[in-house]
Amino acid sequence: MIKEIACKPPPEEEIARRIEGLKERLKEEGISFAIILQNVDIFYFTGTMQKGILVVPASGEPLFFVEKSVEKARKETPLEVIPKGRESYARDVLAKKGFIKGRCGMELDVLPFNMYVRWKELLQIEIKDISPIIKELRMIKSEFEIEEIRKSGRIVSRVFDMAKEIIKEGMTELDVALILESEGRRFSHQGFLRMRGFNQEMDNICVTQGVPSTFSSFTDAPIQGTGITPAFPHGPSFNRLKRHLPILIDYGGGYNGYTTDETRIYVIGRLEETFKKPCAVAIEIIEETMDFAKEGINGREIFLHALKKVKKEELENYFMGYGEGKVSFIGHGLGLEINELPVITRSHDITLKEGMVFAFEPKFVIPGKGALGVEVDFIVRKDKLERVTDTSFGIIYL
Amino acid sequence: MIKEIACKPPPEEEIARRIEGLKERLKEEGISFAIILQNVDIFYFTGTMQKGILVVPASGEPLFFVEKSVEKARKETPLEVIPKGRESYARDVLAKKGFIKGRCGMELDVLPFNMYVRWKELLQIEIKDISPIIKELRMIKSEFEIEEIRKSGRIVSRVFDMAKEIIKEGMTELDVALILESEGRRFSHQGFLRMRGFNQEMDNICVTQGVPSTFSSFTDAPIQGTGITPAFPHGPSFNRLKRHLPILIDYGGGYNGYTTDETRIYVIGRLEETFKKPCAVAIEIIEETMDFAKEGINGREIFLHALKKVKKEELENYFMGYGEGKVSFIGHGLGLEINELPVITRSHDITLKEGMVFAFEPKFVIPGKGALGVEVDFIVRKDKLERVTDTSFGIIYL
Repeated sequence: MIKEIACKPPPEEEIARRIEGLKERLKEEGISFAIILQNVDIFYFTGTMQKGILVVPASGEPLFFVEKSVEKARKETPLEVIPKGRESYARDVLAKKGFIKGRCGMELDVLPFNMYVRWKELLQIEIKDISPIIKELRMIKSEFEIEEIRKSGRIVSRVFDMAKEIIKEGMTELDVALILESEGRRFSHQGFLRMRGFNQEMDNICVTQGVPSTFSSFTDAPIQGTGITPAFPHGPSFNRLKRHLPILIDYGGGYNGYTTDETRIYVIGRLEETFKKPCAVAIEIIEETMDFAKEGINGREIFLHALKKVKKEELENYFMGYGEGKVSFIGHGLGLEINELPVITRSHDITLKEGMVFAFEPKFVIPGKGALGVEVDFIVRKDKLERVTDTSFGIIYL
Repeated sequence: MIKEIACKPPPEEEIARRIEGLKERLKEEGISFAIILQNVDIFYFTGTMQKGILVVPASGEPLFFVEKSVEKARKETPLEVIPKGRESYARDVLAKKGFIKGRCGMELDVLPFNMYVRWKELLQIEIKDISPIIKELRMIKSEFEIEEIRKSGRIVSRVFDMAKEIIKEGMTELDVALILESEGRRFSHQGFLRMRGFNQEMDNICVTQGVPSTFSSFTDAPIQGTGITPAFPHGPSFNRLKRHLPILIDYGGGYNGYTTDETRIYVIGRLEETFKKPCAVAIEIIEETMDFAKEGINGREIFLHALKKVKKEELENYFMGYGEGKVSFIGHGLGLEINELPVITRSHDITLKEGMVFAFEPKFVIPGKGALGVEVDFIVRKDKLERVTDTSFGIIYL
């Protein structure tokens, strides 16, 4: 029943290169050593996700203190594992080795204030935010990572294919979502997607149609659905699917840590007139972007190209959300988290570089009517944008 | 196909009482006003979960700034909604109203350092951690909350019942988990469980058996399974279920925000000799605890009672995990998050009080063999512990 797709740990050279990259950046920033505590960052730099403390000095060997599981850590990481994970123990070892001097780098974008204070007391030196450095390093994917992202994308393709077979008029959004989510997990979806930051929570899948698809929620996404409770106010709802309105399926693949994120439009019957133009424009924006975007192009240019088209078609009010629900971006980086760099928006000056991977999602919200949009994932190459999946992004008529 | 169980927002009096409780505690602690930003705490004090800023002064009316969704916020909360959510705007309003003086309280257990710095610059006054106050307030559940918790428990009962019908030798842990997770969601499970704190991630369900059930992971739980990827190293795996070994199903209900958390032991065939004593002891610990625990009993006493029994039976090494995987608690509070107060452990001096709700989970990990244990949820009453569900916690033979 389950298709097992074995998850490989990152190759040893990959971990070595990531650590070297961090050391170089620490040197450039004048930071003596980094203390890395967030589980996703620990996974990125070690290849294993344990309760522990990773210390990377600007010069010298990293120290990986592990509280648990030492056994699993030793199996998964090429780094030497120190089988003790207490903060005070780690501090004593660092002190003995003469590490504690100059400035220490920590992940101050996610580290809770109380933990910061504990470390500040232990170290008694300046602590600087290295989250921008870590995000930049993680922004460029290796070929190993791109391969994992492709496997994540294959789960997405499988789920979009299955959606064609199972969607029927009168099913609830939740009915459809549950069937598809289970199918993804049978194809080795890890069952959980990570979004960096305070209060960021993700659905694996959102199926949404009509008025419920037009409301905004506390998360940073243009279209989120309403969910089934005010306590988790996004995702699929009990709303029953109707003919002629666009059904949006926004699904995140998750394979061996790597996230993909694509959206398709399904329609039972013919598409209502209101939605025809915005649907066509969303698809054209993707096609036109694929015509010119590649390494060297600025993300802002991509955003402005889309905006120009949207203005010409007089759809600006509905573009990337409506009113308070509008988001500023049309694309976002993908990797171990679903909100990585680059962000494709008017305000983020970023030149595309080979190995970046991002989701691109022209979407429209028409209040009182419904929401629609398409999302595809791109790998930046020297001469083009390469698709992560090969699934058509046209409207799917059922 | 879906059983819709409508989610009610908390009654107006409930919100008023929660806010009053907070104001009283702020006064006692000499804090002029609280700024609440975490989505779960915002939901607790307002009845709606939005991107916004809740300000509660020790004296006077709360101010609820909402960025999005203003429309949904107005529908769900009895508080007045200020339809602007920017930090600098909120600061200006607070300044004009003369709020910014004395000490401000914030959730410093979860607030990332960088956000703290932004607020500190905006406010320029002392900021004190009020997470202990909030956790204490949330620890005592109202009858409304207990009713929601019971509905959450009914999802758990339904899933445990269904498990009896579907578990077959040779299925993978994941096969079983997917069927049961979908069933829970068809009974209005919200699809997501919240665990407070840095790096805390939850599976909704863990199905685990034999050696894979004996490994520990980075989360604070005695038994977690191994998952299918090092990038999400807990939960059900591709391990195939065998005869005669205990199959553990640890499942968290989630209804209208409220979490329940119970575990049962299933066995195909007869139970292997090794597991008989620990299984019997786990069940006896629950029965004996129900015989004496009630309002007025100390949580430490409950822990020590269990420990004494475990020592007498010479099972101490395996109790609540093995080696590095051992956790310190045998019980944990439940509510909008799965790790609330009270914690039932040797080191937490807490007298049980009517309205507390906690999961109680005597468990054993036998290295190289397997893990087992039972978990039931209790509501503390004046004269007894009341079960949340009425499902038998004995071993289920298939």
